[in-house]
Amino acid sequence: MIRFKNARIMTLAGDDPFKITEGEVWTDGDKIAFIGVPTKEQLESTKFEREICVMKNLLMPSFKNAHTHSAMTFLRSYADDLPLQKWLFEKVFPLEAKLTGEDVYYFTKVANLEYLTSGITASFDMYFELDDYVKACTEMGFRSVMCGSVSGEAGRIKEVEENFLKYNEVSPLIGYRLGFHAEYTCDEKLLEAMGRLAEKYKAPVYTHNSETESEVEGCINKYGKTPTALFDSLGIYNFGGGGFHCVHMTEEDLDIFKKRGAYIVTNPGSNSKLASGIADIRAMKDKGIGLAIGTDGPASNNALDMFREMYLMTVLGKLREKDAAACDAYDVLYAATVGSAKAMGLDDCDTLEVGKQADIIMIDLKQPNMQPMNNIPKNIVYSGSKSNVALTMCAGKVLYENGKFTDFDTDEIYKGAQERAVRIQNEVKN
Amino acid sequence: MIRFKNARIMTLAGDDPFKITEGEVWTDGDKIAFIGVPTKEQLESTKFEREICVMKNLLMPSFKNAHTHSAMTFLRSYADDLPLQKWLFEKVFPLEAKLTGEDVYYFTKVANLEYLTSGITASFDMYFELDDYVKACTEMGFRSVMCGSVSGEAGRIKEVEENFLKYNEVSPLIGYRLGFHAEYTCDEKLLEAMGRLAEKYKAPVYTHNSETESEVEGCINKYGKTPTALFDSLGIYNFGGGGFHCVHMTEEDLDIFKKRGAYIVTNPGSNSKLASGIADIRAMKDKGIGLAIGTDGPASNNALDMFREMYLMTVLGKLREKDAAACDAYDVLYAATVGSAKAMGLDDCDTLEVGKQADIIMIDLKQPNMQPMNNIPKNIVYSGSKSNVALTMCAGKVLYENGKFTDFDTDEIYKGAQERAVRIQNEVKN
Repeated sequence: MIRFKNARIMTLAGDDPFKITEGEVWTDGDKIAFIGVPTKEQLESTKFEREICVMKNLLMPSFKNAHTHSAMTFLRSYADDLPLQKWLFEKVFPLEAKLTGEDVYYFTKVANLEYLTSGITASFDMYFELDDYVKACTEMGFRSVMCGSVSGEAGRIKEVEENFLKYNEVSPLIGYRLGFHAEYTCDEKLLEAMGRLAEKYKAPVYTHNSETESEVEGCINKYGKTPTALFDSLGIYNFGGGGFHCVHMTEEDLDIFKKRGAYIVTNPGSNSKLASGIADIRAMKDKGIGLAIGTDGPASNNALDMFREMYLMTVLGKLREKDAAACDAYDVLYAATVGSAKAMGLDDCDTLEVGKQADIIMIDLKQPNMQPMNNIPKNIVYSGSKSNVALTMCAGKVLYENGKFTDFDTDEIYKGAQERAVRIQNEVKN
Repeated sequence: MIRFKNARIMTLAGDDPFKITEGEVWTDGDKIAFIGVPTKEQLESTKFEREICVMKNLLMPSFKNAHTHSAMTFLRSYADDLPLQKWLFEKVFPLEAKLTGEDVYYFTKVANLEYLTSGITASFDMYFELDDYVKACTEMGFRSVMCGSVSGEAGRIKEVEENFLKYNEVSPLIGYRLGFHAEYTCDEKLLEAMGRLAEKYKAPVYTHNSETESEVEGCINKYGKTPTALFDSLGIYNFGGGGFHCVHMTEEDLDIFKKRGAYIVTNPGSNSKLASGIADIRAMKDKGIGLAIGTDGPASNNALDMFREMYLMTVLGKLREKDAAACDAYDVLYAATVGSAKAMGLDDCDTLEVGKQADIIMIDLKQPNMQPMNNIPKNIVYSGSKSNVALTMCAGKVLYENGKFTDFDTDEIYKGAQERAVRIQNEVKN
């Protein structure tokens, strides 16, 4: 058992999710074993392998990154400030074509390190070379849900089904959800097959959805429907799931998400940097649609920092509505934790409650950006920073603490990633 | 002398400001004494009081915060997510009316601590209780340029002149520039008097300018001119100066800024959170206007973090233009350092050059958000964070290093600020 004592605690559970109490949190293996103020008897009868004095700092559920392409760290700051098409077709795609499985292993590790510094303990990741990806995550003790990213022709649906059956069994830390890349990269038969696969497994399906104006226009031209309406007509959202980005949505699209219980995963950093637009978070919230937050990949963000995404989500919402009262910080904090966990199907990682997974962060309140403490949750969203993450625990293991990783050879990871990034760039040049 | 050795160095000086070389930086008192690769003789003949191994991390000029109201830390997260008018008239103004000089002293110290964690060594500060403000800054060794913030009637111009004569003499760390609050808070006679004062001292003048649509509309209704055109007609910008915010500018306004050599200080965080709009940075850059960046005060941002402002400046510019190539990161990094220093009149604090002030930061490149190192300046803007600030030196003194302040009793500062924030809130309630 690990004992966190002398803590402020925000569980994000129940009817008053942002209420802050004082007490202790104990973890046993990968689970939360106790929350509250222990009796003398409880303390005397419990053996702790470690006691951590939280010094009245805050314990809260970790963040979950509900949309990303982690291994794209190799493209970070490689090709910024370019028009979108030039960036994608001249820079991203040619370099991605050179990736090996071992490259993905190294580049994923860089991303996972960065997640931990920002208090993120799980990612919903859409990429390839999945065996190497899984190896990187399980070695690090980092939780990941992979998302199917198939594109092309109908025959490729087999891959998704095989991966779904294989990767949901490999480790308690690893999951796999049905998914495909996007409407514009899949042919009609593949989309139909995806609807049938959802039906076969009664499973939710996830995809990039309505990220850009041109994507929506193209879909309407081809199918006479928006991407969301098309997916719904094929039964793809019949068991829920979600859309990544969802910047350009009609009211009918939002009604479909609500009806199907599908989540919208907003990606404000990426949507801003690629000039895709600002999602209508207020309308989504008003409809009662479940909201989650993702960083998207490091080629288009370029950081993997939930504090940045939270701030962007609220202030871009305010800018869009021309209303400083839009997109309340409480909703944003809820989306980054509970909403993202639920969107990914991590129903036992969403809140601090006994029996849930011990995915916990400690927020250092004794830094100037958290002072004075007029409102701690609002401080987290509006003035918080990854520098306030004093400790990150995933599945009961402390992986990051006081600015240091507890168990990783970062020099080796950085060196491996740097050499491989340079090699890939040289391969494309030659 | 302090010796920084084994460093990457980005001076931001000369024709190739973002070029990164390897070598050493030496400081002597408050100035930079050497940059480059020393000879054996130079090393043998120099005595160092301290040697800091930079371990191939990056030395660069510190950031300068070109617009803020530091002491407003007491309002941080006190009243967010409210409509603008309710926030200002029901929350901000009543509490500000209760501030004492000693309150300003404490609240300023909290802000200055936060600046140092983000690599900011100087602020351009518009507030009141200036003796207490100056005491807070000089005690901490923090550089500040105060900006006149007069409002009301013409008679109050005397205060500005007195402050101008007094505060430019009190300390090498302290300056004072002519300024006034804004067009909409000053009567016409006061604005005319400001023009005459500029002429008397041949001095630049600074003010809030065109922050909101309603401000510009109100000015046009009253004077038949935009704020910028009005100020120019009164000679206010005859010796340069600047405008804070400048969100709603006409092309004629920009031409006036260019002609007068006045700076535009952009405040993207505050303009977003208050839903004021997005400044047309591309047009300003195309006109060749000097650009600087400010956080604005912590009541409206709420952080005092230059990394956040840099990221917002570039991505909001891209969103506004619907062009991922707009607002290049290099321009943003230049504005946050050289541009802001020049806007504030800190001509000896802008770059790393021998004889300039030793206002230097060390950026930790060995964190995952800086890996791989495809492009270090772009990493700083797009994936950098205050957590990468490994050391902050102001006027030759190390004030912040490895997450710790070198010389401040933070517990005492936080306690004083918290008690005073609560007292003020209670005074307003009672």
